[in-house]
Amino acid sequence: MRKIGKQTIEFENMPNIISSYSIVGPKEGKGNFSQYFHKILDDDLFFQDSYEKAERKLFLTATQEALKKCDMSQQDIDVLIGGDLMNQIISSNFNARELQAPFLGVFGACSTMVESLIVGACLIDGNGFKNAVCVTGSHFSTAEKQFRYPLELGTQRPPTSQWTVTGAGCIILSSKDSNVKITKATIGKVVDWNVCDVNNMGGAMAPAALETLYTFFEDTQTKPDDYDLILTGDLGKLGSEILRDLMEFRGYKLGANYGDCGQMIFSNEQKVFQGGSGCGCVASVLSSYVIDRLKCGKLKKVIVVATGALMSTISSQQGDSIPCIAHLVLLEGKDV
Amino acid sequence: MRKIGKQTIEFENMPNIISSYSIVGPKEGKGNFSQYFHKILDDDLFFQDSYEKAERKLFLTATQEALKKCDMSQQDIDVLIGGDLMNQIISSNFNARELQAPFLGVFGACSTMVESLIVGACLIDGNGFKNAVCVTGSHFSTAEKQFRYPLELGTQRPPTSQWTVTGAGCIILSSKDSNVKITKATIGKVVDWNVCDVNNMGGAMAPAALETLYTFFEDTQTKPDDYDLILTGDLGKLGSEILRDLMEFRGYKLGANYGDCGQMIFSNEQKVFQGGSGCGCVASVLSSYVIDRLKCGKLKKVIVVATGALMSTISSQQGDSIPCIAHLVLLEGKDV
Repeated sequence: MRKIGKQTIEFENMPNIISSYSIVGPKEGKGNFSQYFHKILDDDLFFQDSYEKAERKLFLTATQEALKKCDMSQQDIDVLIGGDLMNQIISSNFNARELQAPFLGVFGACSTMVESLIVGACLIDGNGFKNAVCVTGSHFSTAEKQFRYPLELGTQRPPTSQWTVTGAGCIILSSKDSNVKITKATIGKVVDWNVCDVNNMGGAMAPAALETLYTFFEDTQTKPDDYDLILTGDLGKLGSEILRDLMEFRGYKLGANYGDCGQMIFSNEQKVFQGGSGCGCVASVLSSYVIDRLKCGKLKKVIVVATGALMSTISSQQGDSIPCIAHLVLLEGKDV
Repeated sequence: MRKIGKQTIEFENMPNIISSYSIVGPKEGKGNFSQYFHKILDDDLFFQDSYEKAERKLFLTATQEALKKCDMSQQDIDVLIGGDLMNQIISSNFNARELQAPFLGVFGACSTMVESLIVGACLIDGNGFKNAVCVTGSHFSTAEKQFRYPLELGTQRPPTSQWTVTGAGCIILSSKDSNVKITKATIGKVVDWNVCDVNNMGGAMAPAALETLYTFFEDTQTKPDDYDLILTGDLGKLGSEILRDLMEFRGYKLGANYGDCGQMIFSNEQKVFQGGSGCGCVASVLSSYVIDRLKCGKLKKVIVVATGALMSTISSQQGDSIPCIAHLVLLEGKDV
């Protein structure tokens, strides 16, 4: 790999995406990507006795099914990379315990999938690893309990709020050739424009997406029109509109090829205000819809910018604003 | 880099340690490494209005001072890597906000420093990054509040307990030559021998240290006597004795060259039962005593195995046992 510009990496050995799998909850299964997800649950408790255990089972199922799709077994995993929103990333830790693979825990809030892909791509590009299994996800009920209010309270949701996606995605990177590759990546910086409203994540995270996307275009000397699809993670409706405005102000107008997973994952009838959020949002959309369309040649060059809000309940309670980050990967498909 | 054996990586471009800095609280400053730490605080609140903010300031001070030691500025950082024990690794996130550098958040509980070094070494070895700044730490009062009881309760500590170290360490890796290098690494698997007692971390983590250390010796076809020092992170007195027993049972007797940072950091008079723990334990000892002695040639080959307990309060409350991990790096010094 080599560095281009200020912050972007170009991969020379082109880490390949050889498998991906998505699993989502019943609500997500009624949204706009229903025909693309690999598995849709009937019940978001997933036959477990707590939502935390259900979240873990989402991770494990996604990983095992992604392995199966490329004829790999747990023993073949060179490195497992992942994290999640739970305190001390327990969903990922317990998933790693079941898989018995060398494990690197990462945390980038809702940007975790792209952060995992960047770390995995660097490890494979460096020639030490044959494969890297990246997995993350989220669960509405565990996130709601941990970050907001007890579910039983039925607290009214403010209009700027987003709905944490119940779902997980697993993407397997390999040095083995395939027709979808990670060709470039930009590791984000922490950006904080002093938004303190934890019910307006899109507004808080849009400046982080701006900085990373702007840096990528400058570093690569490209512009939005050079790509088939530019996808942010989970800015939601409001956040993605803010990003459009901010990018235009900086000289890069985002056109019809720009979309946001959070904005798109639920349908308008589902009344989730600004859309979806959580690690599972970009993870499930990327590992189903996006990679499927890259594989079949309908998309050729896709920028994925996953954003994350890096506060905790204690930082918010102590009056801190929300530090945010956005990590970017460029995925390229070959002609088929 | 290339893989040797089952789980170990050998670095071909030998990432160099060009700078390190440690900062600790007043209690740690009265312990066994007092003459080695770079800065000892008089007050563990560090002129802040909360312990969480004091923890952040430890991170920032360690990073800024480590940068100063090697004539680097914030703008020179290719990638900042780190994590901590706080929910959503806020100490690291806010540190990254101040430093304005591309940031990869990681989480391996008390193994975070070594996990960061492994990721950093892989990035540098892959030729894309000139430097990687690894920083982590912990604070007794933030960890105690978050994982155990309110400080004001004065809860009695059980005899198997350890004392979370107040301190941080920063280590800067670079492609620039120096006389201390990371030559090998082993990424750990999650090991869980069904210990549920969160007041016996050493007992819970010893099996993880066993698996990683055993795998490293098997992968490299070496034995404990081939190294000047074998250092575990924070198993404490009991945990390190358990590790000695377990390793002997597996055919590798650890001799006088084995030590544990947790066991060694406090003196016997400080009455902290099993010793120190927390991300700051191995981070502060490694970035002061160990690297100093490697630099001056008093140590040549040092294995550092940092262990982490990957539970959260919610996983423990739901009856789960403690999943643990241990990551390993081999540090080598040149003749001086």
